[in-house]
Amino acid sequence: MSKRPLIVIGGSSERSQETMGAFQEFPQVEACRLYSKFSVRPSSIAAIPSVIEKAVRSSIYGRPGACYVDIPADFVTLQVNVNSIKYVECCMPPPVSMAEASAVHRAASVIRNAKRPLLIIGKGAAYARAEEGLRKLVEQCKLPFLPTPMGKGVIPDNHPNCVGAARSRALQFADVIVLFGARLNWILHFGVPPRYQPDVKFIQVDICAEELGNNVRPAVTLLGDINAVTKQLLEQFDKTQWQYPPESSWWKNLREKMKSNEAASKELASQNSLPMNYYTVFYHVQEQLPRDCIVVSEGANTMDIGRTVLQNCLPRHRLDAGTFGTMGVGLGFAIAAAIVAKDRNPGQRVICVEGDSAFGFSGMEVETICRYNLPIVLLVVNNNGIYQGVDKDSWKEMLKFGDATAVAPPVCLLPNSHYEQVMTAFGGTGYFVQTQEELQKSLRQSLADTTKPSLLNIMIEPQATRKAQDFHWLTRSNL
Amino acid sequence: MSKRPLIVIGGSSERSQETMGAFQEFPQVEACRLYSKFSVRPSSIAAIPSVIEKAVRSSIYGRPGACYVDIPADFVTLQVNVNSIKYVECCMPPPVSMAEASAVHRAASVIRNAKRPLLIIGKGAAYARAEEGLRKLVEQCKLPFLPTPMGKGVIPDNHPNCVGAARSRALQFADVIVLFGARLNWILHFGVPPRYQPDVKFIQVDICAEELGNNVRPAVTLLGDINAVTKQLLEQFDKTQWQYPPESSWWKNLREKMKSNEAASKELASQNSLPMNYYTVFYHVQEQLPRDCIVVSEGANTMDIGRTVLQNCLPRHRLDAGTFGTMGVGLGFAIAAAIVAKDRNPGQRVICVEGDSAFGFSGMEVETICRYNLPIVLLVVNNNGIYQGVDKDSWKEMLKFGDATAVAPPVCLLPNSHYEQVMTAFGGTGYFVQTQEELQKSLRQSLADTTKPSLLNIMIEPQATRKAQDFHWLTRSNL
Amino acid sequence: MSKRPLIVIGGSSERSQETMGAFQEFPQVEACRLYSKFSVRPSSIAAIPSVIEKAVRSSIYGRPGACYVDIPADFVTLQVNVNSIKYVECCMPPPVSMAEASAVHRAASVIRNAKRPLLIIGKGAAYARAEEGLRKLVEQCKLPFLPTPMGKGVIPDNHPNCVGAARSRALQFADVIVLFGARLNWILHFGVPPRYQPDVKFIQVDICAEELGNNVRPAVTLLGDINAVTKQLLEQFDKTQWQYPPESSWWKNLREKMKSNEAASKELASQNSLPMNYYTVFYHVQEQLPRDCIVVSEGANTMDIGRTVLQNCLPRHRLDAGTFGTMGVGLGFAIAAAIVAKDRNPGQRVICVEGDSAFGFSGMEVETICRYNLPIVLLVVNNNGIYQGVDKDSWKEMLKFGDATAVAPPVCLLPNSHYEQVMTAFGGTGYFVQTQEELQKSLRQSLADTTKPSLLNIMIEPQATRKAQDFHWLTRSNL
Amino acid sequence: MSKRPLIVIGGSSERSQETMGAFQEFPQVEACRLYSKFSVRPSSIAAIPSVIEKAVRSSIYGRPGACYVDIPADFVTLQVNVNSIKYVECCMPPPVSMAEASAVHRAASVIRNAKRPLLIIGKGAAYARAEEGLRKLVEQCKLPFLPTPMGKGVIPDNHPNCVGAARSRALQFADVIVLFGARLNWILHFGVPPRYQPDVKFIQVDICAEELGNNVRPAVTLLGDINAVTKQLLEQFDKTQWQYPPESSWWKNLREKMKSNEAASKELASQNSLPMNYYTVFYHVQEQLPRDCIVVSEGANTMDIGRTVLQNCLPRHRLDAGTFGTMGVGLGFAIAAAIVAKDRNPGQRVICVEGDSAFGFSGMEVETICRYNLPIVLLVVNNNGIYQGVDKDSWKEMLKFGDATAVAPPVCLLPNSHYEQVMTAFGGTGYFVQTQEELQKSLRQSLADTTKPSLLNIMIEPQATRKAQDFHWLTRSNL
Repeated sequence: MSKRPLIVIGGSSERSQETMGAFQEFPQVEACRLYSKFSVRPSSIAAIPSVIEKAVRSSIYGRPGACYVDIPADFVTLQVNVNSIKYVECCMPPPVSMAEASAVHRAASVIRNAKRPLLIIGKGAAYARAEEGLRKLVEQCKLPFLPTPMGKGVIPDNHPNCVGAARSRALQFADVIVLFGARLNWILHFGVPPRYQPDVKFIQVDICAEELGNNVRPAVTLLGDINAVTKQLLEQFDKTQWQYPPESSWWKNLREKMKSNEAASKELASQNSLPMNYYTVFYHVQEQLPRDCIVVSEGANTMDIGRTVLQNCLPRHRLDAGTFGTMGVGLGFAIAAAIVAKDRNPGQRVICVEGDSAFGFSGMEVETICRYNLPIVLLVVNNNGIYQGVDKDSWKEMLKFGDATAVAPPVCLLPNSHYEQVMTAFGGTGYFVQTQEELQKSLRQSLADTTKPSLLNIMIEPQATRKAQDFHWLTRSNL
Repeated sequence: MSKRPLIVIGGSSERSQETMGAFQEFPQVEACRLYSKFSVRPSSIAAIPSVIEKAVRSSIYGRPGACYVDIPADFVTLQVNVNSIKYVECCMPPPVSMAEASAVHRAASVIRNAKRPLLIIGKGAAYARAEEGLRKLVEQCKLPFLPTPMGKGVIPDNHPNCVGAARSRALQFADVIVLFGARLNWILHFGVPPRYQPDVKFIQVDICAEELGNNVRPAVTLLGDINAVTKQLLEQFDKTQWQYPPESSWWKNLREKMKSNEAASKELASQNSLPMNYYTVFYHVQEQLPRDCIVVSEGANTMDIGRTVLQNCLPRHRLDAGTFGTMGVGLGFAIAAAIVAKDRNPGQRVICVEGDSAFGFSGMEVETICRYNLPIVLLVVNNNGIYQGVDKDSWKEMLKFGDATAVAPPVCLLPNSHYEQVMTAFGGTGYFVQTQEELQKSLRQSLADTTKPSLLNIMIEPQATRKAQDFHWLTRSNL
Repeated sequence: MSKRPLIVIGGSSERSQETMGAFQEFPQVEACRLYSKFSVRPSSIAAIPSVIEKAVRSSIYGRPGACYVDIPADFVTLQVNVNSIKYVECCMPPPVSMAEASAVHRAASVIRNAKRPLLIIGKGAAYARAEEGLRKLVEQCKLPFLPTPMGKGVIPDNHPNCVGAARSRALQFADVIVLFGARLNWILHFGVPPRYQPDVKFIQVDICAEELGNNVRPAVTLLGDINAVTKQLLEQFDKTQWQYPPESSWWKNLREKMKSNEAASKELASQNSLPMNYYTVFYHVQEQLPRDCIVVSEGANTMDIGRTVLQNCLPRHRLDAGTFGTMGVGLGFAIAAAIVAKDRNPGQRVICVEGDSAFGFSGMEVETICRYNLPIVLLVVNNNGIYQGVDKDSWKEMLKFGDATAVAPPVCLLPNSHYEQVMTAFGGTGYFVQTQEELQKSLRQSLADTTKPSLLNIMIEPQATRKAQDFHWLTRSNL
Repeated sequence: MSKRPLIVIGGSSERSQETMGAFQEFPQVEACRLYSKFSVRPSSIAAIPSVIEKAVRSSIYGRPGACYVDIPADFVTLQVNVNSIKYVECCMPPPVSMAEASAVHRAASVIRNAKRPLLIIGKGAAYARAEEGLRKLVEQCKLPFLPTPMGKGVIPDNHPNCVGAARSRALQFADVIVLFGARLNWILHFGVPPRYQPDVKFIQVDICAEELGNNVRPAVTLLGDINAVTKQLLEQFDKTQWQYPPESSWWKNLREKMKSNEAASKELASQNSLPMNYYTVFYHVQEQLPRDCIVVSEGANTMDIGRTVLQNCLPRHRLDAGTFGTMGVGLGFAIAAAIVAKDRNPGQRVICVEGDSAFGFSGMEVETICRYNLPIVLLVVNNNGIYQGVDKDSWKEMLKFGDATAVAPPVCLLPNSHYEQVMTAFGGTGYFVQTQEELQKSLRQSLADTTKPSLLNIMIEPQATRKAQDFHWLTRSNL
């Protein structure tokens, strides 16, 4: 993943018509500046290879990011002397850097002295392919860990040391936290009280120097490739063996909290009332989730609750709205992942879990999915709204009072939308799912059918929500 | 329309979390700068009224344009002393300016001396509500006119003086062209040969000084409100009556060309082969088009050919991809138009004519259409592709050779997509239309049914295209 | 002036080295976007003429503004087929627009009914060359007027109807104010109380629609060329003769205030103490100021007080820091004005009145002045600081306490700097001026000597300041 | 130096007047975006400490760069509850990263196998304070090295292994080049033929990943802190001792070229003709240059030739126009350096070597130098022009033909400008220097006088230029 550059090639208007009011004339390179690591128009056709090389390299060297290359319309038909082109080899794999030995030493010492340690494994660890080292570190030192949304799967979610089910507790009471490629942004509540101890010691491991010290004053900073730094830490613990006592009160505390949270989730999941609630749905999905599938997800509650229940066992197998929290990215992510998967691992499935609102942003991409017959199972978790919707009867009641555009709450979507028909419209398989049995069965069929994509429109209780949280969303509680 | 401001209100992250990695933190005001006339964040809640007033005023004064106002998340819950708010009345209607008398005089004189005159009526004339004056000018002086895409309807397309059916001819041979709020951009081929006579005299009437003289050296420029300037011109022709001879060779030339073009179109329209071609489809639509409907359109051939066949009788009743040529705007335009229509003129319909590719950009908005039960009839003119698609059999043939992602031409869409089911999925009415009879019937039913929106998925020949054109698209021939 | 385009041509690095780290490589077009009306790089050498035409036209059509044209280094040596160049004639003079007749009528009526009318003549009136019309309006209707800094001279400052000497009074109590090309920005205190009556009626005459209604809700707006609109107003008062009673209490009130202000200034000017104060200096300068000279000025008190004392008799003969209030523009302005003057009116002088701090921004340009032997007399009004400095003895006292970088107030400059030697260093004439007699004499000599530029370094009391003001600078009182 | 953050604090207009036309209202944060690593306005007074901390940290972590912090005018007087301020400690010193062990191993192996090795020591090495390690590397392995302009002094220029005097030769024939914090931009001719061997192997040592691979495909990349990586390389050569044969033909080749270049320079320097040439001037300056002085320089030939003759013995003791090649930075650099020097090392001198054109950009800063009595000796190397000027007689001859503004070549400055009087104007000491004796004497006096700054205006032959170069400036030859 970190080795996969992200380059957007944009077509712009003919250069000779610039300033004249050309078709779609716009300063595109300038407009992309804020959104990309590198935004450029090659100055000539001959310059394209070197500009592409630079874009690719910029995209994958250092902290990865998207780059934009602008190709004017006249380049498409322009002739160029083949000898004037400077061919350029693709760049080498990203250079690897390591942390300073003394800082590694200090970090190990802080960890050894921790009373309530916690590792947080972020997207950066996934990009750096640090899975092997991190797993060894966790297991050898018996440390509890927590993944961020796109750090899930670097170590499997079902690993006994994963304390995802006690996330708030773990964050709130840890005295030493080691961040592996995870930013202290809104997803991690900026690293500040009341979500953290005021005197918590952060150890930051990151590839990006400017990220270190953001919002907190870290105890130790380890600048370098996260995989390489993880190995440096391991060397310390190899030299002087150490493990965190598995029977410490911290582990007990965390395990108790995990047990009670999981019990609460299971209790919710086991409810038989109809329409179903989120937990019931996700528990059934989890049961059938193929171990090697790629999970894509977006939505509000759907993404947040789904993340806690659906387990990733492999690194770089989860894509969600991420740091920016943008809706509408899900189907594009699913398509990209499926094209890669088709190539690399025939048989692998992409499970795309969408809230109904999120699906509305780019749901028409099912045409693309069907056109290329991509191995995607789309789940639309449908509560008729954003955060919360209303049921069909309440909706009708509301409409009696007049114009729907005036009366309906803006967060409501049309009740009982048949999103599955958006899939059947293009030849895929659609399921309208109202009960647990229907969910189990349609999911089984979808996963079994390798000839076609499918979409499950899963009706849930419009007022369904999360189980009670210790902290309010306004403190940005959803990891 | 010109009196309707276009303000985008954007929500941004909490100010106190800026630089910390807040949820969706981004310099939004800066990012909107290139896209808007005025982009701003109020400095406090108390400043909101005056900032909104300024945004509204900027949007409708001078050349109209969209404005962006940024509201940070913390404004939503922040309390402010009611007395600290400076209430601000809404601005007055836009000020009106007129052209210099001597320039008006010169313009009238150039028109009087024209051998082959032509008026071009642009979007600016529609914004300025110049319909009455322009109609009088055309009729009193017996002048031929041509509307631009969004200038259609300022004078009805079926007016005898409209030479839209001889567009290329009219542009190519006119010796005097009067532009009313129409830019000499790609849509008008920049005003230069070979699409125009090298010595054609342009008279530009525009509200925007900087637009005058763009790409050509005009004979006369009339800066001012287009409605006011039209009236100034009329005064000239009232004082000294004049009319262009209706039996001139120019009028004959134009009428002949119109006749032959219309005959060719009719010939195409009357073909009975299946699948239908564009002309057949649009002739049937035109037959049933309500006089007061709003036509929204986007697509490549669909928008271009549709524009020549579908007639607008009222000003500001057509919305299409416009100057920028952006796809994806159609359903948003249709929804906005329908909400205004519902309010102002119950019974009025919005007819949204979409190419299948264009529909794919924002087709999911049918959920919104159904949710608010908007009076929209969606026509998807479906050729399985962009410009040209392939039929189902050719598609299957192609796929035999391997992976669809590798084999299918990038301009092809999935053959026989059932877009109508995207409508039925949300409770509207859908029609799969393959024959002329089905088209007539489903259109009749859709227009008769005032209780529900509907979508007609109209299958046409994948290789269908325009009739032969004098000029190639690369010289930007489609008005 | 309005007909003189302002185009900045910038050289940028070779296109073929873009992205490679070329000499001074930078996105210059993008960087100039915020500072210019039009910022562009021609796409080829062949496109230069049309891009320059567009830049010139953009600069002088509509509200005037600077434009930026970027020329890459390789253009300088690149060869181009002479036939591929599209030669383009220079654009025609800016189009002229007029206000709507009904609005003009309404404006005249509001003026007729005014109890305490006031005209404000801004830079826009100067650009529009509206001097003749405005003078006629003022004289025919006996109206009091006030110029903005760069509106000075449109009607001579010594005109009996000029109420510049009672500026604050006039603004504060007028009940009808007609703005001719003057923005209600900080210079005019935004048009709001306490600097204005809460119910004052503004009539705005402006070429820029978006400026109308800024910060106030005007009674009437007149959009159009300011010269043309002035003539429209005059026509109204020609048709129905009217004049404001010269013996009204408003005129009496203003005349009294002017008399007392002028007396206070004269009192200050007549003080014989040494070092001199601002008023003494400016009264002597004013006495010798050639009627047709161009006055350039920048500084804090120097520009503000100088503006009230130094009189302009001709339009477009004053350049100062203007709307933006930027320091460092003075010498560049003086050089540009002198080059135009040399050409147009040999014998005409540029008098450049600089505060010592302002002079420090670009004082080295005296080399350019001397190199081209430009007809400039530079006056540096030297108080050893910004707003206020300290004298030599206080300075020495301060330095006793330690390091000057730590001790000296940041607004202080070196006492008794001999700026005149910066002029003699390059062969011009320099004067160190401490007394009234020295000032009179050196000024006389400088104006008499047409062979060389000169600089008068005029020492004033470091603590000298304005006479007491009704309003504090923080309400932005200095017109 | 790398530990010294560069933060620009800008004052902007009052927030409550934004959009109203406030004094100097402008989107400053946005305007600074392209010029800074981090550009921001604190959202409140309470946020200032954390924003400053972030700006400081961004400025010195990773590749160093300038940051902009915007302070609205109203912040200056606004009151804030002292308890609402979040005090923030200053960030820790920048984190240090190291290169991957295997890459270091490979780099050492490439160096060992080099036939014609060369080290290039750049500004990045100076920032990283890598002087000790680099010196050890050079001496232990007997390698030739070349400094970039601001890399001068990391190892003293007079070190026997410095091949600066054979720069072009060294670059052109080296087969292995190790870059320590030096970019392959225009200063190093982009690393491509004909200035380099087509198959030269680059080893890049840099703190910035995205810089690696720019314009060339490196043999080895070493990402990390340059000081740390240098030590890693040294460890390799400590483990397995190796040195490059001092009697190799490469060393002979380089030494011969150095000898002949130095002889040519000396020959030029020893010319007794008047006016002097560049070499004569710089040789005399070099003779008296204090070992610990800071050399600041800008200009065209002055900076380029001066760089080859004036020797730096200490790291971070040279400041010149640098990567961007901007003129006008010299006096600002000198002032900043002198303020630091005064504090840290009383007695230390700043020698500021300016071309006459360069001095013209900001020469007025001598007032600041005199005001704070800074220990600066300014040398203006005066050839009456940019690149080349004309002498006084030719100038007079030219002027006979008419107007100087029309006749004088744009690269000429006024002949015999007495820049030294700009210094005496403010109380410093000025010297007008025409002969070698005058130069020696005035320099001696200036350096001896610790009570005042001084300026030497050194007249040289207007047509003086560099000795013949192997490559033309157009291939960007001046390191």
